[in-house]
Amino acid sequence: MPITANNPNRKSWLEITSDSDFPIQNIPFGVFLTKENIVTVGTRLGDFAIDLGALQQLGYFEGIELTDDVFLQDTLNDFISDGKKTWRLVRNRIADIFDAENPALRDNKKHRDVVIFRMEDVEMQLPVFIGDYTDFYSSKEHATNVGKMFRDPENALLPNWLHIPVGYHGRSSTIVPSGIPVHRPMGQTMPADATAPVFGPSRLVDFELETAFITTDANIMGENIPVGEAEDYIFGMVLLNDWSARDIQKWEYVPLGPFLAKNFASSISPWIVTMDALEPFRCAQPKQEPTPLPYLQQTGDHAFDINLQVAITPENGDETVVCDSNMKYMYWTMSQQLAHHTINGCRINSGDMMGSGTISGPTENSFGSMLELTWGGKNPIQMKDGSERKFINDGDTVIMRGYCQNDKVRIGFGEVSSKLLPPIPTK
Amino acid sequence: MPITANNPNRKSWLEITSDSDFPIQNIPFGVFLTKENIVTVGTRLGDFAIDLGALQQLGYFEGIELTDDVFLQDTLNDFISDGKKTWRLVRNRIADIFDAENPALRDNKKHRDVVIFRMEDVEMQLPVFIGDYTDFYSSKEHATNVGKMFRDPENALLPNWLHIPVGYHGRSSTIVPSGIPVHRPMGQTMPADATAPVFGPSRLVDFELETAFITTDANIMGENIPVGEAEDYIFGMVLLNDWSARDIQKWEYVPLGPFLAKNFASSISPWIVTMDALEPFRCAQPKQEPTPLPYLQQTGDHAFDINLQVAITPENGDETVVCDSNMKYMYWTMSQQLAHHTINGCRINSGDMMGSGTISGPTENSFGSMLELTWGGKNPIQMKDGSERKFINDGDTVIMRGYCQNDKVRIGFGEVSSKLLPPIPTK
Repeated sequence: MPITANNPNRKSWLEITSDSDFPIQNIPFGVFLTKENIVTVGTRLGDFAIDLGALQQLGYFEGIELTDDVFLQDTLNDFISDGKKTWRLVRNRIADIFDAENPALRDNKKHRDVVIFRMEDVEMQLPVFIGDYTDFYSSKEHATNVGKMFRDPENALLPNWLHIPVGYHGRSSTIVPSGIPVHRPMGQTMPADATAPVFGPSRLVDFELETAFITTDANIMGENIPVGEAEDYIFGMVLLNDWSARDIQKWEYVPLGPFLAKNFASSISPWIVTMDALEPFRCAQPKQEPTPLPYLQQTGDHAFDINLQVAITPENGDETVVCDSNMKYMYWTMSQQLAHHTINGCRINSGDMMGSGTISGPTENSFGSMLELTWGGKNPIQMKDGSERKFINDGDTVIMRGYCQNDKVRIGFGEVSSKLLPPIPTK
Repeated sequence: MPITANNPNRKSWLEITSDSDFPIQNIPFGVFLTKENIVTVGTRLGDFAIDLGALQQLGYFEGIELTDDVFLQDTLNDFISDGKKTWRLVRNRIADIFDAENPALRDNKKHRDVVIFRMEDVEMQLPVFIGDYTDFYSSKEHATNVGKMFRDPENALLPNWLHIPVGYHGRSSTIVPSGIPVHRPMGQTMPADATAPVFGPSRLVDFELETAFITTDANIMGENIPVGEAEDYIFGMVLLNDWSARDIQKWEYVPLGPFLAKNFASSISPWIVTMDALEPFRCAQPKQEPTPLPYLQQTGDHAFDINLQVAITPENGDETVVCDSNMKYMYWTMSQQLAHHTINGCRINSGDMMGSGTISGPTENSFGSMLELTWGGKNPIQMKDGSERKFINDGDTVIMRGYCQNDKVRIGFGEVSSKLLPPIPTK
């Protein structure tokens, strides 16, 4: 089935500026709350939020097999369960409804009034109920940087890294959408000169620049998903700030991995950009040497050229961009991650989220965490207001942005923006 | 409010043998499916499953504030959300309904016929929807054994172990109830003499003898649960077989912890035994030296004297008991685990599950995994049928049992029993 929604020449009858992340070629999916306290599944065009529940009730999805209330829900899980064919039909239909040449909704003010909201009048929610959250560690540059700092500069990559898309389980209960502030965590750390651990607020709160993909139901327990089919089970992507407390992490993580250093908060952008919308930005992944085991081997292009940026805005200050990276630097592809995740029969559900791991590029300004950008705090970053940052301060807002751009179209993610607040006093 | 359900002198009008895990002093909670394909919340008395949904509809819980359909659900999450006071009221009421002296249900055949099922006529389901699953590593004997085998026998415990209830996130999607078979996982391993990893079925599938507790909603994101209040947020406990593939684990787990080695399956016993029922078996935890940081300090007894046993039944063979342990050996208590888990503000939901980690005792027959029992495969275990086991064979059924016993009453968990099947061929 052709992805007619991707037609780069299509214009919408809605006013959308040319630099918008959300042209009619994007059509992401999200969940929003209106001022009337109604929660609905929606899409976004320019600065407008579109109520897909209302569109469905008005008959605009006629001819597409959809459960009656699939868009009148507070999560996208059921829609995602409907599978790739349905996602494509719906997205193609939405492009058609908002096509400049289509008068049906364009010329029906009564319908427009219940379907179209201004973005400033809605509040974005978590788009899916995330049953399980997995975080990978798939940027070679990031793994190398961390290995150089904390282990052996001569053997920065661990022996398994080039053979396995290394990953670990994260915590679903603290994944929040853009806009929700995050509290600096309290915890145990072992200061460099101490003989016993101390308790207090983390002193080294960091962001991790990541993307994440959302899956559909894919297998029964015991079955694997072959790498060649894995992309069929990926609904779309979001930006992910995987908040990290470096001092807590250092003391707790051997031998079972990060725990409290990560599970206090993970922030995501609220619009899921579909893999269909990203299709024009498919590109070659880095060459994999040594060749991975057969279950991870794939042909063709499976990386995506997504520009990524991180900025920090101090309390009452101006924004400073601290990182420019790109998702295409990821060594392991999303399809390899999903194939690996299921090679042991692990069951994947609709709405599971899988993070890329920190995406660092080859240059010093493309590193995806303060840990790497300041090289463990040795080289502080100058902010526009004259202050310096080694890690994130209370009151700072961390903003991540992502977009794809070619000569015809720009497909963006919007942003994930979250402010770091002081700790809530311990009870 | 007194726990009248714990009265050791109470007898039921239902016939319950004296060696049953489920006397009228237990009253665990679970979810079962009847032959008429009806799913309901229930309890168990002897070899009878009791339909709490039917009891509620018939008015037996009158006077207790309950949501209309709280027992007519396929999980216990909503009931657990109702909180400790409600759990206690309901359990006390059930004890009263089945008290030998109470004629209300005893003498009403019509009611008995819709409320009482024989255990062989029902199929136990997963009792809760588990949003997040955390696994701790809280047995000092287990951590020491593993440290001796894989790291430095002279410094077996890692530096953080005596300060932190070390834990990590597990996978919720593959938690299954007793009776569901588990497939041997496929995966990458690095043989001792190899220079590159190989792919194939795990050769070292193991059980881990654990208990796990189920939480209720406890905090908002950013807030902690003090150690002194933590027990109020624990609904009850189950037995947990945290299936592990030792060869996959060895190759993958540095630096981010176990992943595919654990997430192919975790099996739990289907009846949640409440903390109220376990109250008479409270006992002193091991002395903690050095004294933990203040947020982990507690007074009084917070361990539980629960006998634990593991047996293996080969295909068509007789059962051999391979391990006798006890939950009281755990170094860190459940309340310390929960206080630590939330000290950074991590949000806890109703139905979250937290495993103890492998519970090994001080003697060689009390080690909670084949890895330790056979000391890495060096000392195979003799089975009754004459065969030997270093790890678990295809066709073996692993059975874990747990019970508390004093001179008046026995409170048991029943069992978690699961058969290991060969791998499903890779697609």
